[in-house]
Parts: sequence; structure tokens; C-alpha cells
Amino acid sequence: MGSTFGTIFKTTTFGESHGLGVGAVVDGCPAGITISVDEIQLQLERRRPGQSRLSTPRQESDEVEILSGVEDGLTLGTPIGLLVRNRNQKPGDYRKMADIPRPSHADYSYRMKYGVTAQSGGGRASARETLARVAAGSVAEQFLRAVYGVEIVAWSSQIGGEELVLAESELETITRAGVDATIVRCPDRQKADLMTLAIESAASAQDSLGGVISCLCRNVPAGWGEPVFDKLDALLAQAMISIPAAKGFVSGSGFAAAAMTGFAHNDCFVKGGGGLKTETNFSGGIQGGISNGQLIHFKVAFKPVPTIGRAQKTADYEGHEVVLEGKGRHDPCVVPRAVPIVESMAALTLADLALRQSCTRF
Amino acid sequence: MGSTFGTIFKTTTFGESHGLGVGAVVDGCPAGITISVDEIQLQLERRRPGQSRLSTPRQESDEVEILSGVEDGLTLGTPIGLLVRNRNQKPGDYRKMADIPRPSHADYSYRMKYGVTAQSGGGRASARETLARVAAGSVAEQFLRAVYGVEIVAWSSQIGGEELVLAESELETITRAGVDATIVRCPDRQKADLMTLAIESAASAQDSLGGVISCLCRNVPAGWGEPVFDKLDALLAQAMISIPAAKGFVSGSGFAAAAMTGFAHNDCFVKGGGGLKTETNFSGGIQGGISNGQLIHFKVAFKPVPTIGRAQKTADYEGHEVVLEGKGRHDPCVVPRAVPIVESMAALTLADLALRQSCTRF
Amino acid sequence: MGSTFGTIFKTTTFGESHGLGVGAVVDGCPAGITISVDEIQLQLERRRPGQSRLSTPRQESDEVEILSGVEDGLTLGTPIGLLVRNRNQKPGDYRKMADIPRPSHADYSYRMKYGVTAQSGGGRASARETLARVAAGSVAEQFLRAVYGVEIVAWSSQIGGEELVLAESELETITRAGVDATIVRCPDRQKADLMTLAIESAASAQDSLGGVISCLCRNVPAGWGEPVFDKLDALLAQAMISIPAAKGFVSGSGFAAAAMTGFAHNDCFVKGGGGLKTETNFSGGIQGGISNGQLIHFKVAFKPVPTIGRAQKTADYEGHEVVLEGKGRHDPCVVPRAVPIVESMAALTLADLALRQSCTRF
Amino acid sequence: MGSTFGTIFKTTTFGESHGLGVGAVVDGCPAGITISVDEIQLQLERRRPGQSRLSTPRQESDEVEILSGVEDGLTLGTPIGLLVRNRNQKPGDYRKMADIPRPSHADYSYRMKYGVTAQSGGGRASARETLARVAAGSVAEQFLRAVYGVEIVAWSSQIGGEELVLAESELETITRAGVDATIVRCPDRQKADLMTLAIESAASAQDSLGGVISCLCRNVPAGWGEPVFDKLDALLAQAMISIPAAKGFVSGSGFAAAAMTGFAHNDCFVKGGGGLKTETNFSGGIQGGISNGQLIHFKVAFKPVPTIGRAQKTADYEGHEVVLEGKGRHDPCVVPRAVPIVESMAALTLADLALRQSCTRF
Repeated sequence: MGSTFGTIFKTTTFGESHGLGVGAVVDGCPAGITISVDEIQLQLERRRPGQSRLSTPRQESDEVEILSGVEDGLTLGTPIGLLVRNRNQKPGDYRKMADIPRPSHADYSYRMKYGVTAQSGGGRASARETLARVAAGSVAEQFLRAVYGVEIVAWSSQIGGEELVLAESELETITRAGVDATIVRCPDRQKADLMTLAIESAASAQDSLGGVISCLCRNVPAGWGEPVFDKLDALLAQAMISIPAAKGFVSGSGFAAAAMTGFAHNDCFVKGGGGLKTETNFSGGIQGGISNGQLIHFKVAFKPVPTIGRAQKTADYEGHEVVLEGKGRHDPCVVPRAVPIVESMAALTLADLALRQSCTRF
Repeated sequence: MGSTFGTIFKTTTFGESHGLGVGAVVDGCPAGITISVDEIQLQLERRRPGQSRLSTPRQESDEVEILSGVEDGLTLGTPIGLLVRNRNQKPGDYRKMADIPRPSHADYSYRMKYGVTAQSGGGRASARETLARVAAGSVAEQFLRAVYGVEIVAWSSQIGGEELVLAESELETITRAGVDATIVRCPDRQKADLMTLAIESAASAQDSLGGVISCLCRNVPAGWGEPVFDKLDALLAQAMISIPAAKGFVSGSGFAAAAMTGFAHNDCFVKGGGGLKTETNFSGGIQGGISNGQLIHFKVAFKPVPTIGRAQKTADYEGHEVVLEGKGRHDPCVVPRAVPIVESMAALTLADLALRQSCTRF
Repeated sequence: MGSTFGTIFKTTTFGESHGLGVGAVVDGCPAGITISVDEIQLQLERRRPGQSRLSTPRQESDEVEILSGVEDGLTLGTPIGLLVRNRNQKPGDYRKMADIPRPSHADYSYRMKYGVTAQSGGGRASARETLARVAAGSVAEQFLRAVYGVEIVAWSSQIGGEELVLAESELETITRAGVDATIVRCPDRQKADLMTLAIESAASAQDSLGGVISCLCRNVPAGWGEPVFDKLDALLAQAMISIPAAKGFVSGSGFAAAAMTGFAHNDCFVKGGGGLKTETNFSGGIQGGISNGQLIHFKVAFKPVPTIGRAQKTADYEGHEVVLEGKGRHDPCVVPRAVPIVESMAALTLADLALRQSCTRF
Repeated sequence: MGSTFGTIFKTTTFGESHGLGVGAVVDGCPAGITISVDEIQLQLERRRPGQSRLSTPRQESDEVEILSGVEDGLTLGTPIGLLVRNRNQKPGDYRKMADIPRPSHADYSYRMKYGVTAQSGGGRASARETLARVAAGSVAEQFLRAVYGVEIVAWSSQIGGEELVLAESELETITRAGVDATIVRCPDRQKADLMTLAIESAASAQDSLGGVISCLCRNVPAGWGEPVFDKLDALLAQAMISIPAAKGFVSGSGFAAAAMTGFAHNDCFVKGGGGLKTETNFSGGIQGGISNGQLIHFKVAFKPVPTIGRAQKTADYEGHEVVLEGKGRHDPCVVPRAVPIVESMAALTLADLALRQSCTRF
């Protein structure tokens, strides 16, 4: 249960890191939309391990197949099956940890939930599952851009203690190319260098770092979001917190709003954009859970990767104290690779609400 | 669309502030559960306006009727219909604002979404809708307590600049009675006084304040939460951000996790509680989106109430500049009254995941 | 569980015959649709007991209230709450039967399901629940007629052994007024008289009769229905069989198709109606689960009312043999009153698929 | 849209006959259930074309892969990905018919729905899609048998004009082996011979035949089925009518009930089976939409295959009259091969309702 996201544009993912493959079925994508498999592949590459010196050298070859739903590059209106075969399975690496639940990992809670101890069980909690989200998210993004001109761009806005603070006006100029210009996916080169140093320093201590990803959605028309439970920000929150390692979500002013007064926080209207726009955007483009035509802006906090080389005292399932040292190579910081995942989940959320809005007025 | 929450324990709400009433249908509550209408009423009283000097004196009489699904105090397994009639409708108050979208309110985005200009349309975005959540949430809470012993308690942990910071150990002692001992619903009397002052100061400036609500869920068994999209924290995030005025959600360490290392952040296991427990709880009781048997802990940020008496320059729907002064009496801070709403949404989330978990193992 | 129908145009019903009332919440009806409460009331009157000499004289006053979602006669896009209060509760009538499960009624299976023995439990299986369907169905019908010009008409095509067989060409002229011209709701007056006699004869034997309702949906555009599980005929089948006492569903040629050859059964195309039409309509207007623009045509079989005055040997819950004689007055045949219920369920099915189709092409 | 079946035990299918493959994702199957891939394969073989002289000689090699969700033969509780690659694609066969909508086929309605003309579009309406249902249905069946001892068996009870009528007592002895003993899947050898002759006679006339499949579900506990819309018989009706070519569904007495009196039709109770049983079973094991512990019994009518070799006058999309002769080899009667499809859809329906019932009482 729980592997489907969306009401009309519905994505169902499947696959463990140790099974035959990982994939998604996208049901509800309208017919006649141009879908480029190369563009899906491109987003998968941005998520792929081993793409920079900051990432585990494990070279997964993540080639996506479109099994169904697309013919001659056009969607048929039928379910789009997407599959990425697993090739680099080394079950042995994990077998030896079978008796010790890794701290702050999903091993323990999965075992308590399902009552099975399987190498593949935890594999559903692995970052590899996010492949399916990125593949499906790219389909959603291609639909959103083609029909509405929506653009989504995310970046690393904090890694460890290094935070990039931007003025509202600076948001305009951020592009995916600009983000990808640095290996940490921070559009400010100076801050990017500091972030890179922070990751390398954590890596050399066999430790890991957390961070924050910021995301913008441009050209979202006013009116998307379904009161009262499926508000745009509420579904973005679900979508983002469902990403492995996410610990927090804010839209617009976020927790800073708590300390503000209404007078300071209110986004007053002025003429503009062919109708009304707001002078400020503390709302993050969402009012009453519905897009208001302004720039949508939100952030997601990620915890540090729990798998570290540094030795930790913990307990095995029997309760015996053990010392655990993470084997193999793991990313010391997932944030740069999580950037396309955040974009993908935003696309899946928006695509569904776009279709829902198309049923609201006649 | 969007007025249903939950997959098995499903709550559908209806009602505008200017219609005949507000209510909910809870479908999927198991049969044979004892439901006290008095306990529902009690939670409604905690949400009610006019309960303290900090709140608008509007005296709504919010009496709940159980229309169906309960007989002789026991659930039948059939849908539970809950209705609170509206009695204190003053449409005139709002009519005069019909031409001016209130800043940071839902007026503008609702009109863009639905294409209708109705006093009742915005009424769905009004705080009154949350009555239905509280009534349904109380049913969920009674089910959770009866079957699993789950306890949920929330409190105001920040109002404006006044923040209550608690050590992990202090969380144990927080009770709903302790929370209700102060009118701001902060369990620390000294901090509560400062919060009260802050609200009164904002009120006297015809302004408003935001804040943060913290929430604990005790005795949640390990295993609740459905990977990968319906994780416990992901659904809590949706539930919380769906509350009017919510701007942020964190579980456990939240945004602080971004600046931590894995070594510092990992919750290592030790023997305890008849199995394993964790020494720290940065995870907030949730690992891999599944409860791990530890205390569940999350926070929700609320923006300041957008309706303020203080004059603001904004524009009407035609784009003409106008000066808006909020009429009538509005709460200068919703946070104290939102405490039972947070508890209710937590209960609705947990009740559904409890039932989903009961289908996972045989 | 199970009280919600539809994916976008979603109807949730609640209420037992012995509770405070019966109602529905319609979430997903588009905004700006004109809804007449009088028209809802009219359909409720057609379903009401006591409307003719063939029906129980119990005079229920079934007045519907629109609690929310409609203002000044226009839908707001928000959930439409509909409530009919119960007034004629005589729990005593049923209390005495509490120890004996009525044959072919839902008493036994409800008790096995829910583990509770409540007068109201069985009340969910009572015909009174269908009030909510008819109220919601009228909203759906008003939407379908306003936006698409869809017309739905059903009639009693068989009662006991009396069957009205019509040629394809005769279907064109059937109207709701024509159907209502006879108390059995059969548009052929001669056949109607025979049906009336059959019911009166069963009634005088303290027995009951079954029958068949036929239904037409006119002006349904080609393209409605969602492969592969939510085909138009598949959802009509669910909708119809969910009506109390329904035992069978056919569309188009139905079981007669089994004995036909492909050559005889195929609906060949000819030019017509601005595009293509079919020369015959064995498909009943649905091909591959999708409407093809021809007349939609289906039938529903209803069993005889299980509550009869005539004495039957059966057993109580303990297994002791008892003789049961139905007390009170019950309709000897539900078919005439079920006509608007069939229409309502057809409307709910079509309204949802209409909205789903509006998301399919851009 | 519409490619997902079930609420808890959810099956999503994908794939066209002309794409890379056909498959299903089963989300919600409990953890720890033994799943045999051989048993899935066996059901696929029973559905496979070319298995007898009555079927098209096209030899599809339908090998199923379990992509995820099962490890060492046990379910993990995670989504079960099932894939059958297409190998025998001959797009050319269909290309030439692109301008002519085949009568009583889905070509025309698909084009009207999706606005695309693709060889693969119609491929979603092809019988090949049912592969995915059978694979998923086998998983459901293995779960039902392991946990509840449920047994499902279907057979051809009518082909063309040849109908097998069985007494209630004869139902006890029907087994899948007995059904498979004849190539038409009729457990009565004499009747089977007549059915075979009927099919061969239709085939030699380049025509096709319809038929009826009967299905029994044994050992279903009392209590399955969710009032009011998701009744057991209502969901069976949806499931069955969603099978390509299905035109009618009845449970228990079906349309015969229309002509019966309540006294004759009522299933009176007697002591038995450790509680109560019914003397007759006109209800088909379902009362008030809930299983009552008796044998579940229903029938599905199938129309004759619309693709025939015999020449028919019809029109192309432009409205020009054309003569169409079906090329290639097609089954003259789908009924024998549809037997495992009916069983599979029954299993998917029951598995979901079993899990829903497990949330109803605590």
C-alpha cells in the first residue's frame, strides 16, 4: 500500500534495490502529449550515483524503457509503463548487516511493519526507488511544460552549515543549467565551493552531511489546488516529505512566519500581469491552498545520510551492543542528487492538480 | 474535490461559514467502538471562538449532532455523519468586502479557481471548516485510544518571537490539562505569560501574530506508515499543511538536521521496551516513513492571521488602489485555538494508518 | 467503508433508517452549475413510499435540505451537503425481530460482518438509504443536462411474468412523463395494467414480486468510460448492482449475445450524425467500455421483496426453527419506486466519467 | 485513468498488444505470503492462445517475470511488479485496417476518446491486456487460498445455443481439473462435445460465437463486501463487465428472480455449518451485498468475437461504405480462454474485500 501518488495523474512505483528492476506506471497522462525518452534519461542521469567526485563511484547504468502508453513519441492516453533494470546488485554487501538494524535507517521499522527480514525489504526504502519517481516526474514535467509552460527548478540552498540566502529578485534568474554548473547544484559558485568543501570534509571524517533544497515553480496559473485536504501546499508537503531523508517542508515564509505580524506578512495586491499580482510573496505563490499566479516557492530539509563509515555503538536485533562501521562507498551528502527528485515530485503534484482544475469549471 | 482525507478511515467534510452548517462523514471507522458525543463536544469547545479574552467574542454555539453510524454509544461500522449547524451568520460583514480580495487570504485564489464570487465560497477557506475536522478527529482519537492506547497532545510552542524550547525529557510530562491551564495553551506558565503579552500587544496595534504548534503522539506501535508515498511523516505533513494558515512542517530534528552530521544525528539502538529503543530521537519516532515505537514528535508553523484592523494599501479586483481596514473582531492569533485542530488531524492520520497496518500481516 | 462512489464527481452517503437522517456529500461537482432544489425534491417524491395504492401507506415526509455548496442556486465548486431528516421512526417494529434474521434480507450478513446487533445496522441496508442516492443523483443529472444535454429515463420493463418488449425504434419516444403516467411506471398502458394486476395479486397473497427496470441514456457523447477497469458498462454494472435487491445487469444485447454469431451481432457503421453511426445497437451504445455516441441502453433485474406477510419457516440466530410473518406494511414490489434510483445511479456514473473524459485530451 | 482495481489490494495494469510488454503492479498484498511463479504461469497458460485446436495458432510465449515484491518465494509487503514481454508483434496486420473502424470493436470509441489513431491504442482493448489481470489474479488467488482456504472455479456454461444447466447439488463436484478435461472448459463431457461442434461450425463459416461463464467461490467467510457501493456483488459486477466482450452479469437467481415471488425466492435459514445456513441459495451467497457464508455463484455473458473472416458491409472513418473481411487467425469463441480471466477478476475482488473486512472489527 502507499505506492500510488495522485488522483487523476496517478503514478504507481514498484521495485527494490535488490530485485530485477525499479519502475513506475503513470496512469492518467492525457493523450497526444509529446514525450521524449531522452529527456527522461537526462533527469535520471542527474539523479545517478557516480556523476561527480562527491558521489559514490558505483556506476549504475540506469537506462529507462518505456514499456507502454507512448507510440511514435506521443502519449496514447493509456498507462505509461516505465522500467529501469537493476544491474549492479551486490546482495552480499547487505547480507552481513542483516542482524543489525542500521541506526536512523529503515531496517528496524520495516521489520516491525512487515514481519519479514529480507534484503529487498529495506531495498524499498533505498534511494534507488527514487529512480521511478524521477522517470514518472519527467513525464509529468513534459506534460506541464507543453500544455501550461510550467517550469520547475530546484537547487541546493544549504549543505551542512553553508546556506545560500537569496533575495526575491534573484530567484528570477535561476536556471537548471546554472544549477548544474556546480557539482553541488548550488547556483552561486562561491557558496558552492564552500558547500563542496563541507562535503569533502565530512567525507574525510567518514561522516555525512544534511542540507536543504529550494524549489521554484514558474508559470503555474492561478487556481490549482483542491480545498480542503488536497491543497497545493499540502500535497507538495506530502510529496516532499515522502522523499527518503526529508525532515521538513516550508512554503513561502515558512517558520519565519511565526515571528511576523500580519501587517508585515500580508501580500498586498497591485495591478499587474494582466490582472492582479502581489507586491511581496510571503505566501510562496499559494493562498488558501490554491495557486495565486505568483512564483511558487518552497524548501525541503534533508537529514545527513545515516550510513557512515565512522564507527557507532548500537545494538543488534537481539539487543546486544555492537559497533557498526558502514562498509562500501556511500554518498556523504544526498542533497545534490536529490535536486531532480524534488523537481520530479513537484511535477507529479502539479500535473495532478492541473488535471483536477480542468474539471472545476465549464 | 479534495474534501476527503484517508484511505480506509475516510473523512469527508462539507460546509461553508455562510451556509446552513458544517459537518463530516467518517466512513471506515470499525464497528463496536465506544464513541462519546461529550468528548467530541469538548474538543469543539477547545476550538471555539470566544473561549478566552484573547479570542473574538463572537459566541458561536457549536453543538454537534451525530446523524448516523452510532447507536447506544457504539459505532455500527457504517458512516458516521456529524453536523454542526451555523447560527451566527452575518453575511453583511463580508458582502461589503466582495470587491476587494483580502491580502494573504483565499478570496483571490478562490475566485480564480471557481470563477464564482460568493460569500460562501471563501467560507470554505474560513476557520469554521475546521470544526468538521475536530469533530471527525475526536472520533479517530477515541478509536485510537480504545484500541491502541494512543495519546495525542499538542501545545503552543512559539507565539511571535516567544519560543518554548524543551528538552527531550520534559516532553514526557506534557498533558492536555497542563496545556489548557493557560489561555495560550503553552504548558510553561512563564513563557505562556510572555506569549499572552505578545498577543495583547499585537491586538492593541490592530495587528496579528503567527506561531508554532508542537505535537506528540504517544504509544504509537512500530509499523505504522505506508511506503513510499503514504509514509507516516508524509501524511502528517499533508494533514498539517492542509490546516488554514499553516506554512511549515517538521518531524523530529526538522531543518536543524540540515546542519548536522550523520554521526551526531543517528539514533543508535539500545535494548529497551521489551525489544529495542533508540538512545536519541532525532527521527521523531519515524524511520523510513514508518513509526519505530518511539515518541512521535512534529511541529507546524502558522502565519499571522491575515485579517487585521490596521489599514493596508492594496487593490480591488479591478486593480484600483484601495485602503483596507478589517472590520469586526478577529482573533489576533489563531495558534491557541489551532491546538485541537493539530491534534485532530494527527488523529485522522494515525487512525487511517493503523487500519492500513492491520492489513499488512496475517 | 464503501459509501463513496466516483473518482472526481464523488458521492458519499450516510444514514440509517433509524438514525437522525439520511444524506449525501457530493464533492467534485463543478462550480457555476444551476441546481434546483425543487428538482431534487421531485425525484425524491418519485422514490417516496405511499405515492400510489401499490405502495406502503407509510407517509414519509422526505424533505431535502442543501446544507452547503450551493448559493443563490449555483454550485460553488465546494462539497454539496444534502440531508433528509428521518421523522417516521418506529424502532419497535424491528426490535421484536432482533432475534430472527429475516430470510434473504441483510440481517444475518450484517451481523456476521460488523459483530454488532443494532436496529440501525440493518437500517443501512434499508431502502431508505437510497434517498441519498436519489438526491445526489439529481445533482448529477442537472449537471449532465446543463453541460451536455444528457437525458436519462428508466421504466419498469418487467414485473413478475409480465414483460414489455420494445423495438429499437420505440425507444425514441419514451419520456419520463410517459413513464409516470402509470402507477407501475411502465410506458405501455396495457402492459402496465397487467403489471398492476400482478402486483395486486401478489399483495393479496401476502407475497411479493420481482421485476426488471430498463434505462436509456440519450445524448451521451462518444468517449466516456475509462479502460480497463472503469469502463462505462463496468461502472454502470457496479452502480446498478449496488442498489438493494438488484440481481443482474446487462447492457445492449446482454445474455442474448451468448447465443448469437459475430456476423449477426456486429454493429456495422454507416455515415450519419455528422460522423459515423451504427446500423444496429447490440452494443448498447458502449464499445470497448467507451460510449460510441449511440443510445446507451441497459437493464437491471430486481428480486422480489424478501419481507412478506406470508408465513415462512426459518431459524433464529440460535438455530431454533421459527415461523416468521412479516409485520407492518411493505411494498409488494419495489420496482416502480426503484425507477428513479436507477436513473440516479446512472447519472452519478455518467457525471464522473464526463469529468474524467475532460482530463483526457488537451 | 481507470487501470487500477481495488482499494487496499490494488492492481494497476499497463501495456498494449503492440508495445514492449504487458504487466501489472499489485500493491497491498500482505507480507509473508508464499507466491509460486509456476502457479502464475499455469494460469497464464490456461489463458494463452493456441492451446487447443479451437484457438488461433498464434504461439505467444507468455513468460511472466516477477520484477519486485517477492523474495525467496515470499511477499515482502511491497508492490509486486509483474511483466510479460511481447514477442509476437505484427503491427502490419493492423496497420491496413487503420482507416476502417472494426464493427463492435473498440477502434471507433478509442479514437473518439483519445483523439489519437495508433495501432497501440486499440491494443489496450485487445485480449492481450487480460494477461496482466490473470497474473495479478493468480497472486490474489494464492493469498486467498493460503489465508482463508478460498477456492474459485469457473467454466463454460453456455456456448452459442448450447447451455449446461446444473442442479445446486451438482455444483459441489466441479473442479478446475474437471473443467480443463475438455477443450471448451465445460465440466460435462457430452455438453462439451456439442459446444465444440458449435464453435467448429461457426469457425468454418468464418463466423464467431458468444457464451456464458459460470463461477463459484467456495469457503468465502460471511462478512465480505462493503455497503453501500462496494458490495460484493456490485464489485464482482464491475470486475466481470470490465472483461473485454462481457455483456451481462448475474449473481444467484439473476434475471429469473424477476418472475419469482418472495415466498419462492427467500432463502430460509436452518441450523448448520456451526451456525446458520440457508436451505436454498437464490441469493448466490450474497445478502445485502455481503457474503453470507454460502456458496458464491455468478454468471457472465460474453458476446461473439467481433473480428470475423466473413465479409461485412461497414464504413471507414470518412463514412465511405467498405467491405471488411477480418484477416489473420482469430479465436472463433473467446469463452474457453476467458475462464481463467473470470477466475482472476473474482480473486482480485475477493482479495480486496477480505482485507477491507480485516479493518472492520477489532
